[in-house]
Amino acid sequence: MEAELKELLHDLESLNQSLPDPSHRASIDKLRLRVEHLTSLEMSGPVRRLKVQDMSAEVVDSNPYSRLMALQRMGIVENYERIREFSVAIVGIGGVGSVAAEMLTRCGIGRLLLYDYDKVELANMNRLFFRPDQVGMTKTDAAVQTLSDINPDVVLESYTLNITTVQGFETFMSSLKNKSFCPRKEGSGVDLVLSCVDNYEARMAVNQACNELNQTWMESGVSEDAVSGHIQLLIPGETACFACAPPLIVASGIDERTLKREGVCAASLPTTMGVVAGLLVQNTLKFLLKFGHVSPYLGYNSLKDFFPTMEMKPNPQCSNAACLERQEEYFLAKPARDAALKAKMEAEDLSATEVSLHADNEWHISVVDDNELDSMGAASTDALPEGLVRELPSADEPQKLPGSEPPLTSIDDLEDLRRQLDALNSN
Amino acid sequence: MEAELKELLHDLESLNQSLPDPSHRASIDKLRLRVEHLTSLEMSGPVRRLKVQDMSAEVVDSNPYSRLMALQRMGIVENYERIREFSVAIVGIGGVGSVAAEMLTRCGIGRLLLYDYDKVELANMNRLFFRPDQVGMTKTDAAVQTLSDINPDVVLESYTLNITTVQGFETFMSSLKNKSFCPRKEGSGVDLVLSCVDNYEARMAVNQACNELNQTWMESGVSEDAVSGHIQLLIPGETACFACAPPLIVASGIDERTLKREGVCAASLPTTMGVVAGLLVQNTLKFLLKFGHVSPYLGYNSLKDFFPTMEMKPNPQCSNAACLERQEEYFLAKPARDAALKAKMEAEDLSATEVSLHADNEWHISVVDDNELDSMGAASTDALPEGLVRELPSADEPQKLPGSEPPLTSIDDLEDLRRQLDALNSN
Repeated sequence: MEAELKELLHDLESLNQSLPDPSHRASIDKLRLRVEHLTSLEMSGPVRRLKVQDMSAEVVDSNPYSRLMALQRMGIVENYERIREFSVAIVGIGGVGSVAAEMLTRCGIGRLLLYDYDKVELANMNRLFFRPDQVGMTKTDAAVQTLSDINPDVVLESYTLNITTVQGFETFMSSLKNKSFCPRKEGSGVDLVLSCVDNYEARMAVNQACNELNQTWMESGVSEDAVSGHIQLLIPGETACFACAPPLIVASGIDERTLKREGVCAASLPTTMGVVAGLLVQNTLKFLLKFGHVSPYLGYNSLKDFFPTMEMKPNPQCSNAACLERQEEYFLAKPARDAALKAKMEAEDLSATEVSLHADNEWHISVVDDNELDSMGAASTDALPEGLVRELPSADEPQKLPGSEPPLTSIDDLEDLRRQLDALNSN
Repeated sequence: MEAELKELLHDLESLNQSLPDPSHRASIDKLRLRVEHLTSLEMSGPVRRLKVQDMSAEVVDSNPYSRLMALQRMGIVENYERIREFSVAIVGIGGVGSVAAEMLTRCGIGRLLLYDYDKVELANMNRLFFRPDQVGMTKTDAAVQTLSDINPDVVLESYTLNITTVQGFETFMSSLKNKSFCPRKEGSGVDLVLSCVDNYEARMAVNQACNELNQTWMESGVSEDAVSGHIQLLIPGETACFACAPPLIVASGIDERTLKREGVCAASLPTTMGVVAGLLVQNTLKFLLKFGHVSPYLGYNSLKDFFPTMEMKPNPQCSNAACLERQEEYFLAKPARDAALKAKMEAEDLSATEVSLHADNEWHISVVDDNELDSMGAASTDALPEGLVRELPSADEPQKLPGSEPPLTSIDDLEDLRRQLDALNSN
């Protein structure tokens, strides 16, 4: 439409120059102003929200972060605003990856790196995120369009490439290494990689990159029948990598593309993919913002609403050389890790003794020493005003029953008790 | 923009009439054509997908239903296309309700009824669905705008009202009773009501309506600290209703609005709400399309990734009169229910004996009678070509060791074995 308006302006100028009478200039000028106004309207597009300098906890309708900053007040997260420092790479912007990207964008993540080579099709409309008017665009372009409208504060980097090609893998690696967003960060340039791809070849490529870079990542997947899925945390050297216990198809070296039959497609549901994306990004938030328990593996069986969990140790015979190097490093770093853990626990013990446990004592409860209680004398607490006697015995002293039998408290041991019982029985 | 283009056209006409020289008419005509073209572009809006007459399972990129119809091929759903006959009412179009509506829309549900009285705010942008350019619109209008773009096949009805007011409740009731979409349907005009509201008063209103109409519904909720949630199935008379075991705040008759403090808001996360919406709509699909196990209650504790389940029977002392009526009806219908169940099980037993279990026998496995095997003779299967002898014994016969000891097979009982062992030990 912009181009059309430009041509309109051009034609108007031609007409202007061909008009001999200057009296018409005013009319032409008016027309030109109208067209320029239309152009500015077209350029501005729909109403967009402005960038926000700092995340505020203020409870007003115009604050897009109030409900997130409330996580601090609720005691869930210590420092929510730290989310702006983090970079997350999402590989595969399909049914799971696109929703994961939207969730992180709405949470105000610092930077997102998006990787996909595919285009949006009408056949993708049964999952969340993409719209029919984006059909034909690359998934990365369509995602950037939607995400930048939702939250202009997020830095978006889009890579329209296939990470399983030589060139694609190189670009993938160098983009992960780029530290310009947060130069003081240790390790690679991203805090987490999320794998949201739909084939094993791409998963093996992510696995290779993350093992080489010693990069923590999370894997996700949804079954071909659309009714189950899983997420998994992979820390090179510490947990199993994707090659440590590969799926049968990978281990047997069959090209999975030969298994896909013409005219047959996998089923998919927005529900299963939405749940898997939600569990994946929840685990991501717990990992980055340090709250709750980060799940090493979480499955989702929707037919039975069953959620299996497990942990997988690395395989010392893993076929991936970089994995074996990370395992070796992790093993060698054990003494340092143990020492750090011990120091941390000691520091926590120390601070626990220093800080009082119950700072605000609403009910004025105080601890009284046993000896102090004795010196106060039981009589003093039980004291009655002069002239009054108790009708019933005090609950605190053993009740002395009337009669000749010795009181129960005089029985010294079990043998005595047995003898007394025998005597009673023989009567 | 449309109005601006109209004025531009008008000014152009004025200029045309003021021009004395007809030689300029051609230029003016050209300009007019350009403006008309711009107007038609503006009117058409973004590319929209056309309505689809029938759901097709054809695997082409342009088919928005191919991945859903694949659920039939995968053996998950018997008849996916039935989804077009169903009507679902969603009360509360917030963080859970809007995502539930989008999922059902993308699944191609027949008809959605949407209820909310609230407006979209920037403070809602930390959850999925609404966009910043919709700020100020009612949630129902914004939802209809987005959902009709995503899937024009879905019939959308929007009710901008508060169901806890007298007038709102009446409109809510009559909209649920309206059967014009599917006149032959039994009961009310909707197949399921989904409660996605954020307060108890509205839940009690949904409960009242569903108890009165004998309407099955599902309830959902997310905690104030944003890290847990639940979904629950409520069948009047059969399961507990919302008043059977009310939350303490409802039972004690405290107005919950007095508990909400000024300047304090509940936390919320797109992850938790996305997961709860996904579990809710998954349960809805299982309920409507009859597959898998429909969960009576499913909780989600995101800090521990724990998913509690339970069942709740109705309370015979429930404070809700309509609930007690439904309980009575359910009790009285027990003999009929038992008879129907018995007939169904007998029919299934009958069909199971008639239908062969393994119709396609890819490996040509057949069952052979034991006697038949004997008559075939072991020798015949082990037969060797003339002139050949076996070097090693056949694996099927017990190996006869050389020497004087009786073969193991001659030992009749344990006593014999013990005696032999003793003899060996005494040597």
